Amino acid sequence: MDKSIKIELRSDTFTLPTSAMLTAMTQAKLGDDVYGEDPTVRELEAKAAHMLGKEAAIFMPSGTMANLASIMAHCPRGTKVLVGDESDIYIYEAAGASICGGVMYEPIKTKSDGRLDLYDLQQSIPRDTTDPQFALPGLICLENPHNRMGGRVLPLSYLVDIQRFSKQHNIPVHMDGARIWNAAITMGIPASTIASYVDSIQFCLSKGLSAPIGSMVAGSQAFIQNVYRIRKMLGGGMRQTGVIAAAGIVALDQMINRLEDDHINARLLAKGLAKIPGIICETQVETNIVFFRVTDSRFTWEKVVHFLQQHGVYVDELGHGRIRAVTHAGIKTEHIEQALKVIRHMLA
Amino acid sequence: MDKSIKIELRSDTFTLPTSAMLTAMTQAKLGDDVYGEDPTVRELEAKAAHMLGKEAAIFMPSGTMANLASIMAHCPRGTKVLVGDESDIYIYEAAGASICGGVMYEPIKTKSDGRLDLYDLQQSIPRDTTDPQFALPGLICLENPHNRMGGRVLPLSYLVDIQRFSKQHNIPVHMDGARIWNAAITMGIPASTIASYVDSIQFCLSKGLSAPIGSMVAGSQAFIQNVYRIRKMLGGGMRQTGVIAAAGIVALDQMINRLEDDHINARLLAKGLAKIPGIICETQVETNIVFFRVTDSRFTWEKVVHFLQQHGVYVDELGHGRIRAVTHAGIKTEHIEQALKVIRHMLA
Amino acid sequence: MDKSIKIELRSDTFTLPTSAMLTAMTQAKLGDDVYGEDPTVRELEAKAAHMLGKEAAIFMPSGTMANLASIMAHCPRGTKVLVGDESDIYIYEAAGASICGGVMYEPIKTKSDGRLDLYDLQQSIPRDTTDPQFALPGLICLENPHNRMGGRVLPLSYLVDIQRFSKQHNIPVHMDGARIWNAAITMGIPASTIASYVDSIQFCLSKGLSAPIGSMVAGSQAFIQNVYRIRKMLGGGMRQTGVIAAAGIVALDQMINRLEDDHINARLLAKGLAKIPGIICETQVETNIVFFRVTDSRFTWEKVVHFLQQHGVYVDELGHGRIRAVTHAGIKTEHIEQALKVIRHMLA
Amino acid sequence: MDKSIKIELRSDTFTLPTSAMLTAMTQAKLGDDVYGEDPTVRELEAKAAHMLGKEAAIFMPSGTMANLASIMAHCPRGTKVLVGDESDIYIYEAAGASICGGVMYEPIKTKSDGRLDLYDLQQSIPRDTTDPQFALPGLICLENPHNRMGGRVLPLSYLVDIQRFSKQHNIPVHMDGARIWNAAITMGIPASTIASYVDSIQFCLSKGLSAPIGSMVAGSQAFIQNVYRIRKMLGGGMRQTGVIAAAGIVALDQMINRLEDDHINARLLAKGLAKIPGIICETQVETNIVFFRVTDSRFTWEKVVHFLQQHGVYVDELGHGRIRAVTHAGIKTEHIEQALKVIRHMLA
Repeated sequence: MDKSIKIELRSDTFTLPTSAMLTAMTQAKLGDDVYGEDPTVRELEAKAAHMLGKEAAIFMPSGTMANLASIMAHCPRGTKVLVGDESDIYIYEAAGASICGGVMYEPIKTKSDGRLDLYDLQQSIPRDTTDPQFALPGLICLENPHNRMGGRVLPLSYLVDIQRFSKQHNIPVHMDGARIWNAAITMGIPASTIASYVDSIQFCLSKGLSAPIGSMVAGSQAFIQNVYRIRKMLGGGMRQTGVIAAAGIVALDQMINRLEDDHINARLLAKGLAKIPGIICETQVETNIVFFRVTDSRFTWEKVVHFLQQHGVYVDELGHGRIRAVTHAGIKTEHIEQALKVIRHMLA
Repeated sequence: MDKSIKIELRSDTFTLPTSAMLTAMTQAKLGDDVYGEDPTVRELEAKAAHMLGKEAAIFMPSGTMANLASIMAHCPRGTKVLVGDESDIYIYEAAGASICGGVMYEPIKTKSDGRLDLYDLQQSIPRDTTDPQFALPGLICLENPHNRMGGRVLPLSYLVDIQRFSKQHNIPVHMDGARIWNAAITMGIPASTIASYVDSIQFCLSKGLSAPIGSMVAGSQAFIQNVYRIRKMLGGGMRQTGVIAAAGIVALDQMINRLEDDHINARLLAKGLAKIPGIICETQVETNIVFFRVTDSRFTWEKVVHFLQQHGVYVDELGHGRIRAVTHAGIKTEHIEQALKVIRHMLA
Repeated sequence: MDKSIKIELRSDTFTLPTSAMLTAMTQAKLGDDVYGEDPTVRELEAKAAHMLGKEAAIFMPSGTMANLASIMAHCPRGTKVLVGDESDIYIYEAAGASICGGVMYEPIKTKSDGRLDLYDLQQSIPRDTTDPQFALPGLICLENPHNRMGGRVLPLSYLVDIQRFSKQHNIPVHMDGARIWNAAITMGIPASTIASYVDSIQFCLSKGLSAPIGSMVAGSQAFIQNVYRIRKMLGGGMRQTGVIAAAGIVALDQMINRLEDDHINARLLAKGLAKIPGIICETQVETNIVFFRVTDSRFTWEKVVHFLQQHGVYVDELGHGRIRAVTHAGIKTEHIEQALKVIRHMLA
Repeated sequence: MDKSIKIELRSDTFTLPTSAMLTAMTQAKLGDDVYGEDPTVRELEAKAAHMLGKEAAIFMPSGTMANLASIMAHCPRGTKVLVGDESDIYIYEAAGASICGGVMYEPIKTKSDGRLDLYDLQQSIPRDTTDPQFALPGLICLENPHNRMGGRVLPLSYLVDIQRFSKQHNIPVHMDGARIWNAAITMGIPASTIASYVDSIQFCLSKGLSAPIGSMVAGSQAFIQNVYRIRKMLGGGMRQTGVIAAAGIVALDQMINRLEDDHINARLLAKGLAKIPGIICETQVETNIVFFRVTDSRFTWEKVVHFLQQHGVYVDELGHGRIRAVTHAGIKTEHIEQALKVIRHMLA
């Protein structure tokens, strides 16, 4: 294999549009989506809603806006949103819900498999909800699969429990399912089954599915109307959006089943890493995300990241000194082998 | 001319990407713009900054977000933004600055040519700025050309005055220049000359310039860094944004000079309308926007809009019962003639 | 009359507590009002609710917080509050609703008698309420009597109209009735009659009624619960609040009927001023507020205010170069005569 | 001792004004503090600033507003405030900083003695502060003494460390010193020494110091100007505030030294509780707050609270099933003995 090749493992957001997508983008029927007249966007939204078993769906320019608008649609001003302390929403989304929504984040300890313990959620509900000292919970956010917990997938039994808790306490649930299709593939069930346990869900078109831009939010008709209004206010209403929605349609039609390959490659990488002395690798790889730590005292993570990059292997630190590698459509089995070779070489 | 043809005069946002744009979109070099690695976006941003004579520029998914992020970057929480009472920012942008920015809108009476009177701006500055009763002005927003004032262009002498006022009172100025290239063409000067009088400016790629998606904000390096941070928070950071930035580059390269045609067609339309009994048309058409009013008592504006649409001519009401028609790359001289014919027919 | 005496006409907020109030303050039964255990506060709240014919009332540390919490209780995040462009809420309350509430102020032109024209209110409702470009109205605020319009009182016929409009469009109405007792005295009707036309009302204990601190908000039980929650968040929940509530009870028991004297003195002042050459005085004085303007070209308003203060008469400018004088319990007829004498002397 | 007596141990906020306070309240020189003309308020503010060694101080209606306005004055919109996860600011202040300030709360694990570990604070600072994904820290809040950690006092060595950290990272520090005088008494040093390590500090007049209403914020002149502006916006500007400020002056003059008695009584209570079988009591009592837990399986905390109240002893649960008892000017040694007797009786 050519050593000059760049092996991009930093994120599946680096995926490039496929040629089928590029073709679709140039042939899409277009209209002004701010006027609601772009037929390609309409088609993508209907398809996403259908695939998730929800009444409606809406195109968003990013996962950040998908989550922000969802939180704002669920949470009245002054409520708190219960989020995992290791969730992307809490860590990487720049406090948007507090800034734009007047909503307080209450981080709940994230379990190693990505779950938020029901007991901990329960503790966040004030005993006396009429006491004005306390902000009241307006929403629970789950992340599935869970990025910083190594791509772990939430079990259905947990979703059953969360849904019961949600109904009992009348607190809706939003799922940050940026990589929900990876979860569905792993579980061997339709994404709509997963989505059936939550009130709203967002997923990303531009991660493993390889579309260039966009995320979708799905939920009830009334909820999506609310998100639509908030999207406009945030500046997420765009014009001939069909040019990118067209790629999203291809993503949903052609790119889901192949995610299995990414999972196989991720497990291959994790298994390989675990065998290398001086490396600790979390081996329970359920989707396309691998975390490892270099324990060899000669190497800080900064040094590791730098060395690997010099040798064509791109990874990054993602919290607590752990290094993350993500597989995707641009990564073949031989890239994994080459990456392992470089890492072995580094530690030799 | 084929009467079944649709003559779309509702807005220049209905423009479709040119074939040069579609080609560019499929050939663009791409990267993950959230990581700052999309070369096509970098190229577009550098080009826009250069053409406006500013240190830096940034791509935004919409004009709404361009204005919102600019206001937030200029205005600390608790200040007020001085906006024209007929400006798009005040009327059509869903209160974003109050919701996301904790900023109060103070509408200033808009003069018939789009100017905000310096006396009125002066009145909005509290006599005693230490008195905590009063929110302090944090920004003046101008709109140029001015949509609801009929596409009127702000004269340079006014910009000189505003800049002096701005410096004297230490209140920055942002220009909503959604159609700034139309203004530059009309004035026969570079857009950078106009932009030199203001601290920040945004313009739209998807109006007269025909790109499918996007607006640009330009300003100082520090200001754009600030906008960049806010864009991420609002959810405007996207991935392989190069696919749409590529169209933006073509828009700037190929679509500016032809705006003159739109202005000629607009004047043709206005002149034609003014001659029709039962119509009052503001004839001072400086760019591509024509407003008219049907005074014939048989017709409400609703009836007019409906009738014209039935006959293939699409227009809309835009404030105070006036009907707006906007010319653009999709409108040829024969479309104008056909539209006038239909309107004459209606009133006959 | 002793010329060294200070005649305080700047505002009725300068009123000092009566000796009955001071006595009541030291004898009040107290408790921790944050725990809801201050019996004197409970008594004041019940009394205010009763006198205004509303289900419930709540003590607030200021009129600013009374209005802010009321607006936030009525208006969900992202809506707009329709306020008079000459109203205290719009001008003097530091943009609180935008900062704390994510609410946009939409100023409506104030008529010379303090009314907001129904036509203008109607114009502020978007034709298409599903269009996400537009913030939707969440509340109408009236001011009665109207401070900057010279203490003018809203006629009942107008309140009937507003109530019908409110119900028709499903937009609640809040009355900033800081001086509502002055209005009631002028109209010769109970304040509860006035309040019956609006959803919520606030009035001030520390203006004409002479209590040292506090305002009351009254409305439905559910609304007041909401205000109670917001009050805590804003920091308006206090401890042994009974010490000041006790003065408020005396204010309601003893200080309302005497407001008639203030009105008589105000009319006396206005009549006197109108006779002085070089002064224009709005003579339609319905309550305790007098506005005048010195037209004598030797005098700016600054000079007038300074000269009068040098001679023991305290007034202030209050918008558009007009000087305001307010009568209250600390102003006797001889003070008015002395003030007129000083003003005549100045212009002689 | 008369068993019908009510022993109020729920909080030191139940303290009633002393007769010296009531007298001072009726004799205070008053003015309209919104105009800055209340001399008694000025006197209290100067005294508080002096006693805390800060340039300026300002009266606030509550500790909640004192903290909220301080956070808003320190933190620009979009930053995060680092607070202890067991702090009053995080738990009991209704999300005000997110609602009114657009500020995100980031809870930091609170150590058993009330400290926030410097390592944890360090972790909350993003590695790359230019990365727009991350909200940046704008303020560190300390609580001293720490309520929910049992009234523990922060050691000076820790304050030295925090100050160094603060300067190194350019993040200011605010101290919620609601009971700062208790801390000063315990440490045997002036409160100004404690305050010298932080940028701003608030303390409460209506807790152990027995004034009916109010808190003070102290800091630099510029900071207090900023708080002053925010106070007005929140509705904390009041009129003849001298009536309550007068009590505050007495509180500072006469009520600080006697706090030592409360500490003695608190230790007496803790020692007594620790000896009772079926009770676990945290014995390291440094100020006036005692926490205990009933481990006797016959009793839930609800049952304990109910039983004790039936027998005249008022306590309450305060997090994690622990019961809190607070001593203050209304509690004598015999009350403690009586309370212990009742508790022993309950568990017998």
